[in-house]
Amino acid sequence: MKNRAMDTERSDAAIDDEGRAEQIAAAASLKPLFHPQSIAVIGASRDKSSIGGRLFNNIINADFNGPVYPVNPRASIVRSIHSYASVKEIPGPVDLAFIVVPSRFVNDVVRECGEKGVRGVVVITAGFSEAGAEGAALEAELLDIVRGAGMRMVGPNCMGLQNTDPDVSLDGQFGPVMPRRGNVSMSSQSGALGLAILDYATEMHLGISTFVSVGNKPDVAGDDLLLFWEEDPNTDVILLYLESFGNPRRFSRIARRIAKKKPIIAVKSGRTLAGARAATSHTGSLANLDVAVDALFRQAGVIRVGTLEELFDVTALLASQPAPKGRRVGVVTNAGGPAILAVDALVSQGLEVPELSDGLQEKLRRFLSDTAAVSNPVDMIAAAGPEEYRASIETLLASDEVDSLITLFIPASEDGVAETATAIREAGEAAPSDKTFVCVYLQSGGAPSELASPDVGFPTFAFPERAAKALRKAATYAEWLARPEGRIVAFDDIDASRARAVVQDAVAGFDEEGDWLDPGAVGTVLKSYGITVPRAEVVTSIDDAVAFGKNLGGPIVLKVISPSAIHKSDVGGVALDVSGAAAIESAYERVTGAVADSEGVLVQEFVEGGHEVLIGMVEDPTFGPLIVFGLGGIFVELIGDVAFRIHPLTDVDADEMVSEVKSARLLEGYRGGEPGDIEAVVETLLRVSALIEDLPEIIEMDLNPVKVGTPGAGVRIVDARIKVRQTKS
Amino acid sequence: MKNRAMDTERSDAAIDDEGRAEQIAAAASLKPLFHPQSIAVIGASRDKSSIGGRLFNNIINADFNGPVYPVNPRASIVRSIHSYASVKEIPGPVDLAFIVVPSRFVNDVVRECGEKGVRGVVVITAGFSEAGAEGAALEAELLDIVRGAGMRMVGPNCMGLQNTDPDVSLDGQFGPVMPRRGNVSMSSQSGALGLAILDYATEMHLGISTFVSVGNKPDVAGDDLLLFWEEDPNTDVILLYLESFGNPRRFSRIARRIAKKKPIIAVKSGRTLAGARAATSHTGSLANLDVAVDALFRQAGVIRVGTLEELFDVTALLASQPAPKGRRVGVVTNAGGPAILAVDALVSQGLEVPELSDGLQEKLRRFLSDTAAVSNPVDMIAAAGPEEYRASIETLLASDEVDSLITLFIPASEDGVAETATAIREAGEAAPSDKTFVCVYLQSGGAPSELASPDVGFPTFAFPERAAKALRKAATYAEWLARPEGRIVAFDDIDASRARAVVQDAVAGFDEEGDWLDPGAVGTVLKSYGITVPRAEVVTSIDDAVAFGKNLGGPIVLKVISPSAIHKSDVGGVALDVSGAAAIESAYERVTGAVADSEGVLVQEFVEGGHEVLIGMVEDPTFGPLIVFGLGGIFVELIGDVAFRIHPLTDVDADEMVSEVKSARLLEGYRGGEPGDIEAVVETLLRVSALIEDLPEIIEMDLNPVKVGTPGAGVRIVDARIKVRQTKS
Repeated sequence: MKNRAMDTERSDAAIDDEGRAEQIAAAASLKPLFHPQSIAVIGASRDKSSIGGRLFNNIINADFNGPVYPVNPRASIVRSIHSYASVKEIPGPVDLAFIVVPSRFVNDVVRECGEKGVRGVVVITAGFSEAGAEGAALEAELLDIVRGAGMRMVGPNCMGLQNTDPDVSLDGQFGPVMPRRGNVSMSSQSGALGLAILDYATEMHLGISTFVSVGNKPDVAGDDLLLFWEEDPNTDVILLYLESFGNPRRFSRIARRIAKKKPIIAVKSGRTLAGARAATSHTGSLANLDVAVDALFRQAGVIRVGTLEELFDVTALLASQPAPKGRRVGVVTNAGGPAILAVDALVSQGLEVPELSDGLQEKLRRFLSDTAAVSNPVDMIAAAGPEEYRASIETLLASDEVDSLITLFIPASEDGVAETATAIREAGEAAPSDKTFVCVYLQSGGAPSELASPDVGFPTFAFPERAAKALRKAATYAEWLARPEGRIVAFDDIDASRARAVVQDAVAGFDEEGDWLDPGAVGTVLKSYGITVPRAEVVTSIDDAVAFGKNLGGPIVLKVISPSAIHKSDVGGVALDVSGAAAIESAYERVTGAVADSEGVLVQEFVEGGHEVLIGMVEDPTFGPLIVFGLGGIFVELIGDVAFRIHPLTDVDADEMVSEVKSARLLEGYRGGEPGDIEAVVETLLRVSALIEDLPEIIEMDLNPVKVGTPGAGVRIVDARIKVRQTKS
Repeated sequence: MKNRAMDTERSDAAIDDEGRAEQIAAAASLKPLFHPQSIAVIGASRDKSSIGGRLFNNIINADFNGPVYPVNPRASIVRSIHSYASVKEIPGPVDLAFIVVPSRFVNDVVRECGEKGVRGVVVITAGFSEAGAEGAALEAELLDIVRGAGMRMVGPNCMGLQNTDPDVSLDGQFGPVMPRRGNVSMSSQSGALGLAILDYATEMHLGISTFVSVGNKPDVAGDDLLLFWEEDPNTDVILLYLESFGNPRRFSRIARRIAKKKPIIAVKSGRTLAGARAATSHTGSLANLDVAVDALFRQAGVIRVGTLEELFDVTALLASQPAPKGRRVGVVTNAGGPAILAVDALVSQGLEVPELSDGLQEKLRRFLSDTAAVSNPVDMIAAAGPEEYRASIETLLASDEVDSLITLFIPASEDGVAETATAIREAGEAAPSDKTFVCVYLQSGGAPSELASPDVGFPTFAFPERAAKALRKAATYAEWLARPEGRIVAFDDIDASRARAVVQDAVAGFDEEGDWLDPGAVGTVLKSYGITVPRAEVVTSIDDAVAFGKNLGGPIVLKVISPSAIHKSDVGGVALDVSGAAAIESAYERVTGAVADSEGVLVQEFVEGGHEVLIGMVEDPTFGPLIVFGLGGIFVELIGDVAFRIHPLTDVDADEMVSEVKSARLLEGYRGGEPGDIEAVVETLLRVSALIEDLPEIIEMDLNPVKVGTPGAGVRIVDARIKVRQTKS
């Protein structure tokens, strides 16, 4: 790309390292929450049905490895343990305090914790920002107290937290389930859902390392927890249930680095509630919160799941198996119907079920009956016993023809189930480390213990379709891991100060809602960033229009300038391909007559031919700038064939945006059509990202249409709109 | 529509009634299979682990209401019952015989059954058409014996059948599960999968009426069973697991009628295995078997599910609840997170979660706490007990603001679960008959018996997303039920004999693979059916081209005629918008020079402007003609924005095809663009259907592009190709 100044580029890795020192400190500060030496439960109750009673009992019953001090001014003994009237009366040091007192007492109690030298608090009590303005004020004060004392806080309005590490053994929540130990850590923004997930996880033989119900999360939120789990040797897989992001940019930066080491699986709900955003541009109407979440997760390598079942399934897979190194899947079965369902599901997920080579089929034939099918699926038929399973699994896993193997087992009777299950387990657990092995046991009542318990080295699913879906998610994650490192490109031909002057000048005249730049300013801003616009001038008389038209030479375009007309061509405010003085005169009258509030006419050179694309940007209130790319208005609006990314774009992001859009194959010269300058499109996307980076006043931008010339001929922005607003300082 | 002769139309209902007498006879002939008075088990064995032993034991253990005769020449007593050497030795009459003898004996044994007067046989034995050519010959002979004796046959190569009706109580299969009685009947083409489904159905509290494993189904197949279940008072919901269709046209006709009375839910697997079809046209490359199955199911009102879980979920819903009369869903919950997941899932399924009216919110406020949310979802928060649930459910069901109600129950502890479950059950079972009620109980280990047993009047799901998906499927089914009656349109301006003559003349010169008609013949065939093509003539010299061009008057198009060039414009074989003798001369040389095998040039009038659409047809080997509609080559090919239907089209089908295609909004004058003559597009689709009906020689057709004029201006077929083949007689 001609104008990239390589010496000023920043790589993904460099972005990831921004603020690293602060992050390391944040991770360390969470240690007292998960590895406390001593605990106080403020509000511990003798009433075992109360929340304070249930929490205290859970901690005692789980045998926490350190002293637990009940604090309750109205009880001297709780569950045979001496109780204190205040945390400050406790003789020894206290690392972590659980707070279960009514909300009006919380802040005083937390203040005492600070004075006592407590390092972490878990505020179970509700009645804070979730309960209206008064609660929000209380919460703000609470956060001040916590920060003032240098503590960290989980909650308020949460269920608590757990750590199954036998050196800690902390069941610090008031629900019924202490899960089995395992390598999955989880954060939930919904207490009820968190409990349900723990409950199902146990049933599904998933082991948990740590669990946190984050509640209102004014202090400890998902991104802090990611930092803690990044370094936690007991955590291999990270699970997030999110309803909102505190700071999506920080989350994204952190998640992107950590996802390279440990898979992060997220349910982000509230997808469709996001609802109405004032949308006055094409880009604005396309963007919605869910698109932003998808873009953020995709760029950061976070595995997004749509349902709770998928959450369990993908977690079960990645907690015990490597992500598949490719899309080729082998299927071994003892019944045809379920295998057909599996193949359907795999192929419809975009995975491949390749026909096995003659050599491999030959090997399988040696130990399978004549009526077995060996092409893939390998259908050993109902008579298959332990030895057929073992040999088929070993043969397929040893070959280089599949990346994953699904073994289906459908017992026709109870005879021999345990033996076959054992054979499958042994063969599956002996899989090479670069192969992904999963099992499907199709019978109600769940799989036998040989195939389903926390110590089995692979997941066993109840239905073939769920195994296929989980494999697909894991394969996509592996592809993200293998993706080349992207770079943020800096351009050395940019006149940032000129653009900034134009924008600041305009913003000064706008109210806090902001407004659209006038066409002349738009042209200057784009030109300052090397984004090619046609030659243009704003005129307010027919004579000036004719004069400038003559000056331009070729055919021209006239566009009325009107605050009321958003889509000027819809109302007849645009005249294309106008040549000659007489035609310019009549076009001028026509376009100004089309609106009631004409403020002049933009005259610009007419750009002929070429594919039309849209490049746009809209500022999301929480996610920051979203950048969009698509082809022509119709593909974008009717078909929704667009790609979104969150700013800043790397070169890899920009390339992927273009290749992700189906209709962009037109730019490759689809079916004998004219090819387009794809490189110039990618460069324009990166220049837009550079512009957004430098001018945070820009909150919405539509470059539409952008005419794409033949390869080497560049692009031309035919129409552009930019909305700016004073940045908050 | 101008040319429709109303008196010759046929309605959907008339189509449905074709062959009705034959169907009634077919349904009656299945009665001995499901309601036998007496049974013989030929191959009954004393070895309880053999298939013959397991089957016999199952029949005895289920207490079949009539005599059961074991037949086994090598045993005189089986399970304390006198055994016969041959079915012919049994003293009394035998209605139904199960055959479990080795395949080489089957045909002789079945012949004896015929001689004995047996009316139905169930052949469990494998080794027939599924096992190669020899087995296929055996099966053909078997079918002849069965038909010759006027019997009906289930199998061979099947698991058997069941009927839970207490007046019958027949467990005629060799697997382990006799399901609980209920109103769902099921047919499975995979024995293993059928067993797995029965097994899960029992776990999921679904009751079964009859179950049939159809095996190779040379005689009794899905369509016969549909006819039987149509009249069966014990069957309210029909479940099909299909791997292939015997006769899709018969299936479609029968299913369409029956789906109006009882929901038919189908898993059709093998979706993606279908693989390569020789595709030499646009239409051919778009069509695949799965598209055909989707079209068939959509037109017939069959509810297609993608996974086994969905099969259970939709069945559970429709077995106890009415299909929702609209898309508005209310949500009642005691926890926020799961409700958000439910709303996400509902909205992403295309259902609506409307905000409740002020009046209704006011009513809810009267009995809910101040901290409850009442707008929808109605979040009664964790404190909600039986009375809050009861009152909220009753209030929402009594309103006219929702069509369905999902009640979520997430127990925070074990206290009060039974009481709340009872309140939900009572309120849900009292729902008005036009409201659809479902429950979600979010906790592992399954719902308590108050909410989950076969006699609960509504389904209880484990996850909100599964409830949402099931509701969506049911709502789509309800919309199909409410769809207006379609009509097959007959046109009175058709010259069928002229078209037939042209086609038969051409076919006579083709081999059995068939070939493409020459352009002149294509024009004649289309014109004979009132499908408007531009004026055109095939010429073989420059002079003739110039002469015909002059004759046409306006600008013309020249297209080379070349057997080798499928996509003529890709190779430069087409010249558009050519005017004047000199230009025609040079264009003629250019297009003929573009191919090596020019056979002349088609000269036709040039049709300017207008939207371009594709109308096509391809003959599917099992489904018959598939008709396709889409906009322009790019939308069709790059985006896949097309609609498929199976011939014959009703007017409703044709209307739906156009409205289903997203890009067809361009024809409505999208965003100030030129509107198109949609009525003429619909009429052309119906004329194509009429043409296909009359000329079964047509196996592939591409009308592409079809230029669509402004409303009232009609359409013009700019390019057309028709492939024909001798019909097999």
